Amino acid sequence: MSSTKDTFATLGIDHAPGQEVRQASGTPDATLLGDPLLGDPVDFSHGDVNSDAFAPAPDALDEFVAGVHRGSRQAYTEYRGDAELRTQVAERLAMFTGRSVCSANELIVTPGTQGALFLALGATMHAGDRVAIVRPDYFANRKVVEFLGGVVVPVSMDYLSRTEEAGLDLGQLEEAFKSGARTFLFSNPNNPTGVVYAPEEIARIAELATHYGATVIVDQLYARLLYSGQQYTHMRASSIDASQVVTIMGPSKTESLSGYRLGVACGPAHIIDRMEKLQAIVSLRAPGYSQSVLRTWFAEPDGWLHERIARHEALRDTLLQRFRAVPGVVVRTPQAGSYIFPRLPQLRIPLHNFVQALRVQAAATVTPGTEFSPDATGSVRLNFSQNHDRAVAAVTRMIHLIDRYAM
Amino acid sequence: MSSTKDTFATLGIDHAPGQEVRQASGTPDATLLGDPLLGDPVDFSHGDVNSDAFAPAPDALDEFVAGVHRGSRQAYTEYRGDAELRTQVAERLAMFTGRSVCSANELIVTPGTQGALFLALGATMHAGDRVAIVRPDYFANRKVVEFLGGVVVPVSMDYLSRTEEAGLDLGQLEEAFKSGARTFLFSNPNNPTGVVYAPEEIARIAELATHYGATVIVDQLYARLLYSGQQYTHMRASSIDASQVVTIMGPSKTESLSGYRLGVACGPAHIIDRMEKLQAIVSLRAPGYSQSVLRTWFAEPDGWLHERIARHEALRDTLLQRFRAVPGVVVRTPQAGSYIFPRLPQLRIPLHNFVQALRVQAAATVTPGTEFSPDATGSVRLNFSQNHDRAVAAVTRMIHLIDRYAM
Repeated sequence: MSSTKDTFATLGIDHAPGQEVRQASGTPDATLLGDPLLGDPVDFSHGDVNSDAFAPAPDALDEFVAGVHRGSRQAYTEYRGDAELRTQVAERLAMFTGRSVCSANELIVTPGTQGALFLALGATMHAGDRVAIVRPDYFANRKVVEFLGGVVVPVSMDYLSRTEEAGLDLGQLEEAFKSGARTFLFSNPNNPTGVVYAPEEIARIAELATHYGATVIVDQLYARLLYSGQQYTHMRASSIDASQVVTIMGPSKTESLSGYRLGVACGPAHIIDRMEKLQAIVSLRAPGYSQSVLRTWFAEPDGWLHERIARHEALRDTLLQRFRAVPGVVVRTPQAGSYIFPRLPQLRIPLHNFVQALRVQAAATVTPGTEFSPDATGSVRLNFSQNHDRAVAAVTRMIHLIDRYAM
Repeated sequence: MSSTKDTFATLGIDHAPGQEVRQASGTPDATLLGDPLLGDPVDFSHGDVNSDAFAPAPDALDEFVAGVHRGSRQAYTEYRGDAELRTQVAERLAMFTGRSVCSANELIVTPGTQGALFLALGATMHAGDRVAIVRPDYFANRKVVEFLGGVVVPVSMDYLSRTEEAGLDLGQLEEAFKSGARTFLFSNPNNPTGVVYAPEEIARIAELATHYGATVIVDQLYARLLYSGQQYTHMRASSIDASQVVTIMGPSKTESLSGYRLGVACGPAHIIDRMEKLQAIVSLRAPGYSQSVLRTWFAEPDGWLHERIARHEALRDTLLQRFRAVPGVVVRTPQAGSYIFPRLPQLRIPLHNFVQALRVQAAATVTPGTEFSPDATGSVRLNFSQNHDRAVAAVTRMIHLIDRYAM
């Protein structure tokens, strides 16, 4: 077993989204070429929830205030979340995912989906266990497994050569299970690429998990932001046994409610029980008053979600057009969510230096691909949930810099 | 290494404060004697933050709303918390604790003090490590150590036979260090007893920690709610090297802000760095908009804290008088905080059954002493941060039941 120091050596966050401010600034990097490009800064490391971009749905703050006025009852809920609220959320999740959710035993409210992810892994794996993780996928997946003393078994996803499927290497997934992995964690829609798993891929994952007795944890954070013509297959409504799947969602992204720190997980009672026990020592509960805001979730005004998707889709299409006009850039069309993950042409400087150049010279903050896969040394992730015009302008500057630094 | 199932077997929460609702209700327990006593229910498992008890300080909600209006900047802070806010909090904590705090590197904002506790232990210990824990002390202390694979080395505190000191067995603490423990975690004021460590005890802990190179994690959640005539000694202002002490505080108790889920920890940069890395995978950050509420902390209106302490002290004195009039009850005067931890006379039914009887027959919810120490089989904890009259009435009913069930 490694020492505490080793554990934390693998948990680097300097290049994590939103942490750029902690990188040493000081003197400009000697590798920078040419002059800065002027323009409004855009932070593509996360969505912009300001009123001129994608603000929270209208009632969120009202529900929060109503929660405060409920006093002790709302401040001190059960660790797994307020019972009445869970009844509401369970019904809506059942409707959305196509399989029933028992509000008493199969649902937990967590501090963000990050909280749910940590608890779900903490409740299903143990030090020494092998856990199958997709490459590329959300950067915290591997870090949680490593902190808990697990062994990451990578499963690659060839997203760039497909259009109808995510491109998961199902043979590798089976090999992972054969090698002893009994937990498989993945995001669908995939973060960072925005691809959605095809029905056949979900069916095969269900088949393999059933055969090998593995638990599947699926992070569906972006499942509501589905672009026109796309279909989404819920893992928990597949042929998999309900006792083998944990589904994570939350209102932080599509609904812009990240500032309230809310997530949920639904799954079999014995795993939700463990997650609650773990939550009791990790953070007690999701913020009490914030929980109240979940009442607005899946209950937005008519047309609100539709309009939100349409605005994201218009921006997606503009950005795709811009990127695809650049020689050497390869990018797949995101099918859902607000991430775009272009692979850049070969550059004269390393990826991390280019990311820094983008920040310093183009006022554009992006996340290096290496956060999502050690192989993604040529890609960057942009969260384009931003003000339309500012985002287009920032990507235009970014493209100037790609030209400037390309081999 | 134990299995996942074993880990969770030690993390029971059925008797944890606030979780009573999940205990099977069904048919009344056959051990119940006599008729129920009528009265307004009082939940002594946590403080009452309603407006007729101890409500949050006046500006809290206003600051929250201002945070929402700051938008992205407040929703997506650094994982360790908003930089500007940390500057404010660091100054106030330095003033309060008597030793400087570097806002850039020595402070982290967490989801509640529970969050800070988990991160502090996660950042300082590793599976297999021995960690010294006081008996009795906050129930989550041992559970976090156990979840992280550590070995609890108990250090007893003979609080009932002292009045000037907490009564920590300093010889046992030294033995714990001699046996290899390099982390010592304790709450001061102590939860559940409300006792405050004497200057000599803090000095000796500092001396031992220095000698054995141990890290001391001190949970000072109740340090502001200090009763008249008491003095408080800050561990971090003792002779201990600053690199060896982590101090945890938060506005959930004295300030009634638990519903916002806020805590802070200050300590050496290398530990705070690790805590931030761990926070990144556990919950990302303390709720963004809630962080804004910390601006009101240590900045309450003139006289607000004084009045709050006086009201708690009046209730404390009444409850002590009531309990001390009961034959066989032994209780030490809490020097700080809002917990009282009476030891009951010998009863005809086991403690957990009596706690259930209190809930069912006296509409009073208390926490069994065994949550805080396996030896505290005859004690219960009451959080008396409640409406004065309702609390006195509930304790009166409780005393009736003590009489009814006493041997």
